[in-house]
Amino acid sequence: MPVTVRYSEVDAQGVVFNMWYLGWFDEAVTAFLAHRGLPYRSMLDAGYDVQVVHTELDYRCGVRWEDDVAVRVTAGALGRTSFTVDFAVQRDGVDVVTGSTVYVVVAADGSGKRPIPDFIAHALT
Amino acid sequence: MPVTVRYSEVDAQGVVFNMWYLGWFDEAVTAFLAHRGLPYRSMLDAGYDVQVVHTELDYRCGVRWEDDVAVRVTAGALGRTSFTVDFAVQRDGVDVVTGSTVYVVVAADGSGKRPIPDFIAHALT
Amino acid sequence: MPVTVRYSEVDAQGVVFNMWYLGWFDEAVTAFLAHRGLPYRSMLDAGYDVQVVHTELDYRCGVRWEDDVAVRVTAGALGRTSFTVDFAVQRDGVDVVTGSTVYVVVAADGSGKRPIPDFIAHALT
Amino acid sequence: MPVTVRYSEVDAQGVVFNMWYLGWFDEAVTAFLAHRGLPYRSMLDAGYDVQVVHTELDYRCGVRWEDDVAVRVTAGALGRTSFTVDFAVQRDGVDVVTGSTVYVVVAADGSGKRPIPDFIAHALT
Repeated sequence: MPVTVRYSEVDAQGVVFNMWYLGWFDEAVTAFLAHRGLPYRSMLDAGYDVQVVHTELDYRCGVRWEDDVAVRVTAGALGRTSFTVDFAVQRDGVDVVTGSTVYVVVAADGSGKRPIPDFIAHALT
Repeated sequence: MPVTVRYSEVDAQGVVFNMWYLGWFDEAVTAFLAHRGLPYRSMLDAGYDVQVVHTELDYRCGVRWEDDVAVRVTAGALGRTSFTVDFAVQRDGVDVVTGSTVYVVVAADGSGKRPIPDFIAHALT
Repeated sequence: MPVTVRYSEVDAQGVVFNMWYLGWFDEAVTAFLAHRGLPYRSMLDAGYDVQVVHTELDYRCGVRWEDDVAVRVTAGALGRTSFTVDFAVQRDGVDVVTGSTVYVVVAADGSGKRPIPDFIAHALT
Repeated sequence: MPVTVRYSEVDAQGVVFNMWYLGWFDEAVTAFLAHRGLPYRSMLDAGYDVQVVHTELDYRCGVRWEDDVAVRVTAGALGRTSFTVDFAVQRDGVDVVTGSTVYVVVAADGSGKRPIPDFIAHALT
């Protein structure tokens, strides 16, 4: 997913403030799942939602305002009720920030965790 | 309402990026109404909500990271279904950014505009 | 400029929180000027910068998460040291939020206002 | 550090969107260091700055708009050029989101990593 860095995301150090990467990751995973045939809306309509339970981020170097960047999304480990997605912010094809997020599948009605249904597992593999 | 400027709100020009003032205004009007005896939650519980329909902002000078700032809130004109709130971001007691927002009172169930009920008018006067 | 609404921009009312429109406008005006042959970087390199001095926003209806939206940018009045840009957030081609921002041209070295130079005026007309 | 949850930080699921915790952590570590006698400004004036190189976050449950929350900051491991700070977002004294960030000490002039000077180590121990 290509990213246009917003001026509002660049802090006084001249680089993207760290929290914005999590906003990019969220946008990227949504695009990723839709691209795999699982728009977020259809997941909700089927009675499922996801919650973020863990995130790790490694910052190798800062992204600047006019950098040409993209977020690469890769499906990671698939558990019974949770799955991992790996993210890499790339500048000119080189990783500058990487991250990994664990999501848990829950019922959309708020009744708690659910085993990952086939149609979600399919989109992730 | 005193404001601690967040590092993430300061852009590469070294001043608070303009959109954040609207975040501050929203926080300030909520605190203002609660202070006047009208917590947002109780307004919702009574079946009312408010929507922003117009905002104006004048930027006199930029707020920097370590500036000592506060937002002053003043109730303005009160109409039949709408009311105006005036905001002033003050640094050392001097206005640096001023704004004015028009809110319309709506039914919390989404059924549209409502005449301003007495308990809201009371909080604003 | 097409906009992908981010999940993080949608508030608990289910619509884009008002401050984000200012973020979109900033991104849109930058793209607009670049499209007109004036990338922000080249303006800075030439010794000029712009500051926002006034903004007005009218919210007709809220933008929701999956809405297909774009920001239309139009150059407005051109003064001696300031110029106006008009913005319209459009959903399916219909204006839902409109805005207008006045920018003043300043020296990039912080020495104050400058008459609008020809190359900036050219990009705006 | 007490936190007033902003309406703009709450997403359509009704809970604080994950990226905002990183904004809170940044604000909290700044307050923590100032409280320990090391205002960020004086660190810069002494020729040092810090960069975030790694962050981990665990989300146990979501923070809602009117929740009474605070961020507890604890200094963690101290290395030669890096140090760790642990964060806990607490609601009614119970951890709801925890995190840990590794900072590296760099020269403020951009010339790279530096061994942690005594005055920074002192503030962290």
